[in-house]
Amino acid sequence: MAIAIDAMGGDVFPRNPVLGAVKAVREKGLDVLLVGDESAIKKELDRCDYEAARIEIVPTTQVVSMEESVAAALRTKKDSSLRVCFELHRQGLAEGLVSAGNSGAMLALGRYVMKMVPGIDRPCISAILPSLQGKVLLVDAGANTDCSAQQLFQFAVLGHLYLSEFYEISSPRIGLLNVGTEEGKGDERRRKAYELLKASPLNFVGNIEGENLFQGRIDVVVTDGFAGNILLKSVQAAAQYMVTIFEREVRNSLVSQLGALWLRSSLLKLRKQTHYAEFGGAPLLGLKGNAIVCHGKSNPDAIAFGIGLAHWAAQAKLAERMNRMIDPYVKLLI
Amino acid sequence: MAIAIDAMGGDVFPRNPVLGAVKAVREKGLDVLLVGDESAIKKELDRCDYEAARIEIVPTTQVVSMEESVAAALRTKKDSSLRVCFELHRQGLAEGLVSAGNSGAMLALGRYVMKMVPGIDRPCISAILPSLQGKVLLVDAGANTDCSAQQLFQFAVLGHLYLSEFYEISSPRIGLLNVGTEEGKGDERRRKAYELLKASPLNFVGNIEGENLFQGRIDVVVTDGFAGNILLKSVQAAAQYMVTIFEREVRNSLVSQLGALWLRSSLLKLRKQTHYAEFGGAPLLGLKGNAIVCHGKSNPDAIAFGIGLAHWAAQAKLAERMNRMIDPYVKLLI
Repeated sequence: MAIAIDAMGGDVFPRNPVLGAVKAVREKGLDVLLVGDESAIKKELDRCDYEAARIEIVPTTQVVSMEESVAAALRTKKDSSLRVCFELHRQGLAEGLVSAGNSGAMLALGRYVMKMVPGIDRPCISAILPSLQGKVLLVDAGANTDCSAQQLFQFAVLGHLYLSEFYEISSPRIGLLNVGTEEGKGDERRRKAYELLKASPLNFVGNIEGENLFQGRIDVVVTDGFAGNILLKSVQAAAQYMVTIFEREVRNSLVSQLGALWLRSSLLKLRKQTHYAEFGGAPLLGLKGNAIVCHGKSNPDAIAFGIGLAHWAAQAKLAERMNRMIDPYVKLLI
Repeated sequence: MAIAIDAMGGDVFPRNPVLGAVKAVREKGLDVLLVGDESAIKKELDRCDYEAARIEIVPTTQVVSMEESVAAALRTKKDSSLRVCFELHRQGLAEGLVSAGNSGAMLALGRYVMKMVPGIDRPCISAILPSLQGKVLLVDAGANTDCSAQQLFQFAVLGHLYLSEFYEISSPRIGLLNVGTEEGKGDERRRKAYELLKASPLNFVGNIEGENLFQGRIDVVVTDGFAGNILLKSVQAAAQYMVTIFEREVRNSLVSQLGALWLRSSLLKLRKQTHYAEFGGAPLLGLKGNAIVCHGKSNPDAIAFGIGLAHWAAQAKLAERMNRMIDPYVKLLI
């Protein structure tokens, strides 16, 4: 089955979604539905070599802009490319969807059209970060700027299920992002979330600080979407900063050309691990659907990666299994 | 005049504050008051070579622990080392003070003993981060986990005054840390703070995201202490992670020993720029006093650096000048 792609999402549309789709079709042999303004999509397609049999355009007449309010997107944009992506998925005409558009609207439309798994109020963005031993899952990486303690707890349950079921990490270690490790740190919500986590069957290791993120001591970092987004982007910025400074140092140093070349390749590898434009999309957890959110600045490579991720989620039955596995937790969540 | 040092502050007390003080005395020729448990301080001093004429012990009987609530510290610890540091400064017996202890208690005691400059509700921690062109001031880097829009605006004014007066940056560019650059992003407080900043005479450049932190496009990042602390520690963790990964790569690569040595020295330089243990302390802005807060994990080098910073603040008349310069802004702040 095909993946629906919001061709009108992101900072460079329809170009980047179209080029990303063409790439995913060519390199991964996937089928795609390009949802959006038919003539604009055709114009972009005409510039590429593409496999016509695997690409179908689904014409829509409206676009949710990056600045648009969620309420307006829900009420007045019934034929937006974003909404139609969700409708196609709900109707079983697409196995999943990808958008680099307005993420607030994406969450709200997802919730409205697809519904949530039981016990979960709102979807969260899950991001995988590298660590010195394995990886760290960040929930929420930016979906919900204001969350209650109960919602923080819900993200922890989603993170637990996601890693244990799809990454085969048994009993993932869960940390609550805070400004100190002692119990009682942080604001009211953090303190309440701490209590909920402590009383739950999850493997809760307590409060963690940013400095413990990458040491391999935890598997899931739980936080609200505001702090999660700040964390993710600060880490990306720090990685980018270090790469730039190193490149400067290489230019100004006596180190051999060979050393510089080696250095550059490992620098780029590192940046790639943290950089959204290449890193390319994250599943929304908690939704009854396989939806991948990409950064607005995603390049075609990132979109193609996101399409691959949506296909993986569909094959792995992400939404279906999350919906089933959450069952024993529902009484704790409500 | 001497600097008062909270000898009972931080994770390794009185050792690290005492060793830091001895180092500051030796290397910078400063006079210090070591405030805390007399016999414990003497025991540490006895292990070092130190210039007795420049070091005086001020005995106190109580300690504010790292876990202690702010209310308890204020009410029941009238003879704590931390409080006595502030009292010595208020009485003009110390030109400034340094503590690596409980930062919540430090802020509350500072506010209670020294008072605030007009129009400012609470002190904020100012941290200087490197950028690709110059530097970036982060306010608040961790003092106030919950702040109102008005308080965010106050931090912006403090940051503006600090950079324009003490770093000679005319009209510092001020950005509000947010989860998107468009107006209207973020929670209610962020949106209100945006309005206050936009209507003010400050050089407000709008919302900024973490990814724009280090590019030299802004001089001041305004945020609440929760997000600020997450940002600071995530950046430090990312820098540390990259240093560790590079060291691994160097060990596993064919690059020459010479290249590796060069690499290591530039890596350490970079980590130093962002790492608190060497980076060593930040001034509290908004307080009518010269107070430097150090991280609990500060090593003696970091404490010595903090003592130097307190001396710089005293010489530059930080508190006095901030108190005077804020005058034209007071009507906007209240």
